[in-house]
Amino acid sequence: MEKLRKIILSEKEMPTKWYNILADMPNKPMPPLHPVTRQPIGPEDLAAVFPMELIKQEVSMERYIDIPDEVISLYHTYRPSPLFRAVELEKVLGTKSKIYYKYEGGNYSGSHKANTAIPQAYYNKQEGVRRITTETGAGQWGSAMSFACNHFGLELLVFMVKVSYNQKPGRKLLMNAYGARVVPSPSTMTNAGRHVLELDPDSPGSLGIAISEAMEVAVQDPYTKYSLGSVLNHVILHQTIVGEEALIQMEKTGDYPDVVIGCFGGGSNFSGIAFPFLRENLLKGKKTRFMTVEPASCPKLTKGKFMYDFGDSAGMTPLLPMYTLGHNFIPEKIHAGGLRYHGAGVLVSQLLKDGFIEAKAKMQRECFEGGVLFAKAEGILPAPESTYAIAAALDEARRADLEGVSKTILFNLSGHGHFDISAYEKFFEGNLPDHEMTAAEVEKAISEIEFPAAN
Amino acid sequence: MEKLRKIILSEKEMPTKWYNILADMPNKPMPPLHPVTRQPIGPEDLAAVFPMELIKQEVSMERYIDIPDEVISLYHTYRPSPLFRAVELEKVLGTKSKIYYKYEGGNYSGSHKANTAIPQAYYNKQEGVRRITTETGAGQWGSAMSFACNHFGLELLVFMVKVSYNQKPGRKLLMNAYGARVVPSPSTMTNAGRHVLELDPDSPGSLGIAISEAMEVAVQDPYTKYSLGSVLNHVILHQTIVGEEALIQMEKTGDYPDVVIGCFGGGSNFSGIAFPFLRENLLKGKKTRFMTVEPASCPKLTKGKFMYDFGDSAGMTPLLPMYTLGHNFIPEKIHAGGLRYHGAGVLVSQLLKDGFIEAKAKMQRECFEGGVLFAKAEGILPAPESTYAIAAALDEARRADLEGVSKTILFNLSGHGHFDISAYEKFFEGNLPDHEMTAAEVEKAISEIEFPAAN
Repeated sequence: MEKLRKIILSEKEMPTKWYNILADMPNKPMPPLHPVTRQPIGPEDLAAVFPMELIKQEVSMERYIDIPDEVISLYHTYRPSPLFRAVELEKVLGTKSKIYYKYEGGNYSGSHKANTAIPQAYYNKQEGVRRITTETGAGQWGSAMSFACNHFGLELLVFMVKVSYNQKPGRKLLMNAYGARVVPSPSTMTNAGRHVLELDPDSPGSLGIAISEAMEVAVQDPYTKYSLGSVLNHVILHQTIVGEEALIQMEKTGDYPDVVIGCFGGGSNFSGIAFPFLRENLLKGKKTRFMTVEPASCPKLTKGKFMYDFGDSAGMTPLLPMYTLGHNFIPEKIHAGGLRYHGAGVLVSQLLKDGFIEAKAKMQRECFEGGVLFAKAEGILPAPESTYAIAAALDEARRADLEGVSKTILFNLSGHGHFDISAYEKFFEGNLPDHEMTAAEVEKAISEIEFPAAN
Repeated sequence: MEKLRKIILSEKEMPTKWYNILADMPNKPMPPLHPVTRQPIGPEDLAAVFPMELIKQEVSMERYIDIPDEVISLYHTYRPSPLFRAVELEKVLGTKSKIYYKYEGGNYSGSHKANTAIPQAYYNKQEGVRRITTETGAGQWGSAMSFACNHFGLELLVFMVKVSYNQKPGRKLLMNAYGARVVPSPSTMTNAGRHVLELDPDSPGSLGIAISEAMEVAVQDPYTKYSLGSVLNHVILHQTIVGEEALIQMEKTGDYPDVVIGCFGGGSNFSGIAFPFLRENLLKGKKTRFMTVEPASCPKLTKGKFMYDFGDSAGMTPLLPMYTLGHNFIPEKIHAGGLRYHGAGVLVSQLLKDGFIEAKAKMQRECFEGGVLFAKAEGILPAPESTYAIAAALDEARRADLEGVSKTILFNLSGHGHFDISAYEKFFEGNLPDHEMTAAEVEKAISEIEFPAAN
């Protein structure tokens, strides 16, 4: 009999609610603090930046939140997304384990980012917003938001981290095709950008700097709001559609994951696939492991400190309790631009601190090796970010084989690498650098800032 | 009620037979002739180039041919492909017509080419072949074949048309990632290539030249065969999976196409979607129109001559009865590399001559305009080739609106444009050239060759 390779769901089977893990966390995260007063903030403090419906989602304690009909309708252009059994990869490895991956690269944006771009644009439009500002690293988030904003009739201004802007002209052009304006960050458009450029005219930029720039523009105009593609609770909420679908799909296979893996930038693709399964651990006694995989050059979860820190470089965001390398940290120019962020979302940080998830850091070249192995076997060329999840999945399968056991491994293939081909070129040429941040470097990066402890 | 946007089929609903239109053509095409003797050739004359099972398919008169289980299994990694109702595009146009598109860009190769790459690699492997040579224009076919050959354990050598090789490094790197060797054509590896370079060291290359090079290498080694990505009957046979699925999907919508549209290079994506519907015309009295869309710079169907001609520039292939611009014709360097071919497949040529299908030529810039309009509305960035089908679909919808009627329009969105972003960049910059080949230029191109008449 033919092996099951692909598990698809009908539109009717697509879940119609997002899952909010805040409802089920044994230890709730500490509150965000006002950047100036350092007192806990309320919803009204965020109103200049986000529409009220997203603020409500940010702080909601409801376990499930209904997905609006208009969002469901647009989700249906590409969802439910397929779950694949990596039959060919298993053959190449000769593993006894079963490897599954949820593929989120099949939509217009080429990554999971569409899942939150669509509802964010929708809620902004509902509340009369006319223009959105945002940042983008690898460009996946910017692409996702460009189409979503155009669809709902919103203008979009994207601050794109300069190193990615230069390495990935394709992503910029895709955003242009969808009608967005794209500016390399740091830029001279904002105080935050000019300040960085004064200190270092050759700054490669960072997600933290780009966030500062986008926020600075947004707060100056009542009809302009800011939008973030990861980290925040409402973003992670929207991504849970991935894991909710995967739960139904895994049930159809007759298997259940021993481990769920996601690469880690700010937390949204990992959390999206993991949290619905983590709910099954918390509420139904399942024993799945959850693993984040971050670059060794940006190791906030494995080497960073759990403390209050800003989400951006200029200190405009609320202070959040999170694992961080310090908001002034500028990561090495590795190609997985989506993973170049100094901090981790509050939910993941708390869950890691409480031992519900694991963190792992990997070197870039090993991840690309895994990515090419995967592409040759399964066909899909993964985004550089996603290769971190692949490499960790390979580790799990190999370890299980050494131990003589068979595991069921599920990872999130968060995007394709069609716009990252220059990184693959460098890899093939042997010119892709490996960099591991040392404990001393981390200590130095963090020592420069001082905030309320978060324990 | 939510409008139906996407019609998906389960794996069980995927057809398990290809459709061979030769069985139903009122006038059968004239036979291929031997390039030297100019006598009709038999299957044995092709045995040095193709495996016997593909030769049998090339000349078969059976209406349906079973898809092998191994091919079905690999098809299932990405098939059935979705059929979309272009709800958003219809809104933007304000049209009364219904526009549907079959999307073939969702697989590893990013185009319909995977549909024939997989069976071609499979049949070669079955017959003990070790190495394949082929040509590629835009790179979609080469990418498709690279993964398929790697999957079945075959080496692959790709001659890539030089202008595409230079414009589209991404496609070359994708082929490398799948393990293929890629050489820009004309090359110094072959007599055919060296001959072209002597006459014009700066030759941009053409599909005809690349075919000559690939064939020359293949015939020198009994374990090496040649593989073609379009034009031939067996290639078109494999592509009919597209139309067979679309027939089932259209039935689910309750609509039936008034017109079916495909862009035109050698004929495979157009024929793939059109022929199963054309069968319904021939056998069941349906009245669907069928429209090929080619570049005005390479107008073989609209301005070429129906005659015997070679498929390649060096005259190594059999002489085929087809619409052609002459096998020495080197098309302008427009970006839709997949449409830069001097001739049309035998089946489409005969059907056009007999009035069963229509042909239309369009200028490049208008097609890109249509492509960007489509991307903004529907999300998917189309391949430059596919924009020709989009532009013609827009024409049909606009004409129907002028006439005050509602049509059902179906086109084949043959691939995505992620590796063609430099063409979009040129378009946005206003640097994309338009070129229309005049009747005099066509006459000159054809006058240089003299072959048996084909009427």
